[in-house]
Amino acid sequence: MAMNVAVFGLGSMGFGMASSCLRAGLRVHGFDIDAARVASFLAEGGKNGAVSEVAPLLDAVVVVVLNAAQVESVLFGDNGVVPSLREGAVVLSCATVPPEFAKEAEKRCAEKDLLFLDAPISGGTVKAAQGALGIMASGSEAAFTAARPILDATAETVFRLGDAAGAGSAMKAVNQLLAGVHIATMAEAMTFGMTQGIRPDTFVEVITKCAGNSWMLENRAPHVVAGDYTPHSQVNIWPKDLGIVLQAAKSAGFHAPITETALRQYKLAVEMGLGKQDDAAVTKVYAKDAGLTLPKESE
Amino acid sequence: MAMNVAVFGLGSMGFGMASSCLRAGLRVHGFDIDAARVASFLAEGGKNGAVSEVAPLLDAVVVVVLNAAQVESVLFGDNGVVPSLREGAVVLSCATVPPEFAKEAEKRCAEKDLLFLDAPISGGTVKAAQGALGIMASGSEAAFTAARPILDATAETVFRLGDAAGAGSAMKAVNQLLAGVHIATMAEAMTFGMTQGIRPDTFVEVITKCAGNSWMLENRAPHVVAGDYTPHSQVNIWPKDLGIVLQAAKSAGFHAPITETALRQYKLAVEMGLGKQDDAAVTKVYAKDAGLTLPKESE
Repeated sequence: MAMNVAVFGLGSMGFGMASSCLRAGLRVHGFDIDAARVASFLAEGGKNGAVSEVAPLLDAVVVVVLNAAQVESVLFGDNGVVPSLREGAVVLSCATVPPEFAKEAEKRCAEKDLLFLDAPISGGTVKAAQGALGIMASGSEAAFTAARPILDATAETVFRLGDAAGAGSAMKAVNQLLAGVHIATMAEAMTFGMTQGIRPDTFVEVITKCAGNSWMLENRAPHVVAGDYTPHSQVNIWPKDLGIVLQAAKSAGFHAPITETALRQYKLAVEMGLGKQDDAAVTKVYAKDAGLTLPKESE
Repeated sequence: MAMNVAVFGLGSMGFGMASSCLRAGLRVHGFDIDAARVASFLAEGGKNGAVSEVAPLLDAVVVVVLNAAQVESVLFGDNGVVPSLREGAVVLSCATVPPEFAKEAEKRCAEKDLLFLDAPISGGTVKAAQGALGIMASGSEAAFTAARPILDATAETVFRLGDAAGAGSAMKAVNQLLAGVHIATMAEAMTFGMTQGIRPDTFVEVITKCAGNSWMLENRAPHVVAGDYTPHSQVNIWPKDLGIVLQAAKSAGFHAPITETALRQYKLAVEMGLGKQDDAAVTKVYAKDAGLTLPKESE
């Protein structure tokens, strides 16, 4: 019989993962506070229902919400799913959360005889839709085994990082440190180039073939060239994720000055009202400071 | 008849370019203050001699020295080559120099009826040896035409960035901003990961397949994992190159806070006596600060 799965959070990442599970033949219930997203998922062949009625039937819960507070609410809140799950069901926690939070959630699930996989994701909305994410996973052998059909349906690569929660979220924090700094550095370099007479499209053409390239530059710089700030990933993500990095760093007595500097640029972007734009919009912080006009922007 | 070329500077980049020119059938004279490098080049089939005697025969001069002061000395200094060159010979300036310096050098060459190509290089020593560099070039049509056999012999990709000197060096500065920040960010992320229980080799394995990847991370992080700081590119390069970036930025009224922060990390590395080590050694700044032991380091 097909596995019963619930996906909490049908934003672009969660919707892609839920759809990938459907395509793999799993029975998938989708939940989101946005009714329009739920309707779209029903149209794809997904299911919905009252959490308390669906939960006892589930083999697995996939949580793809924005932050630790939302994971807390979905799992352990007033209408949380955990109390209604059957023994041995597995919870996949895919949001970017502090490693300490993941460890704590694993412990609380164990108290209810539930399996827990610390399973943050990387790859963006396109790979989520294709079922080709990278998943930075840690957890018990039993959790990996129980989660296997979902990992197979949603991931191109599963990095198996340890036998307990925390390691997956730690690696995700490392990845976010790099990704967040690289986007802001792309913005700094592109606008610096503009002051030296280098057009943004020339910047992209040359740098993507040179040693200054990064995955994020290649992905985000074209958004600036196109003047298209449709939020595939929002500016608002970065104060949150770099905040997780710096909190974990602080607890470890570690100084991360480049991360701190990049975080300041994202906070300036939020103050400029750009929080809900694509994160490439951090470029506008530099453009405003230097009096530059980015492609497709007026005046 | 084969083109007569002189290469000034037979460090790892210049030696690779000079050897690539030899393989392409050009007649190549090599000059360096280090006699051992000259001897190695003679053993490869290269030539040497007194600059004043060789210069009148030359069709092209390739300058692959460390900085603007050395370019100044080689071209216009007491024993400089420019006064002895024939009309119409071309000078390829491949060092990383301020865009303003390249513009000025072009003007001074034009006064002697010499062609000038602003032609900084990217790609590292392996690609230099293979004749597969990226060259960020700007200059007149005549300069490109005169330099063509050398570009063909040494480059995989020639980016043609404009019809006057300055644009090539500007793009190189943009590339160095990114490359320098990316190496320091790799160091910050790898050591942050260590505080969270992530081993350096696991860091490389996972991140090179994730969105946090950069060209520089992929190239330099394995040096830290191997504990091998053989200087393919020295820490000392970065205070110089990021200094060029920040000077050009300052002249343009542009603020580059992430670049400034990365520069501070390289300056700390120099203060620790790491200037002549591979630039991946900037990781040691973080390790020392956090009390971490990097791979293959004792205590």
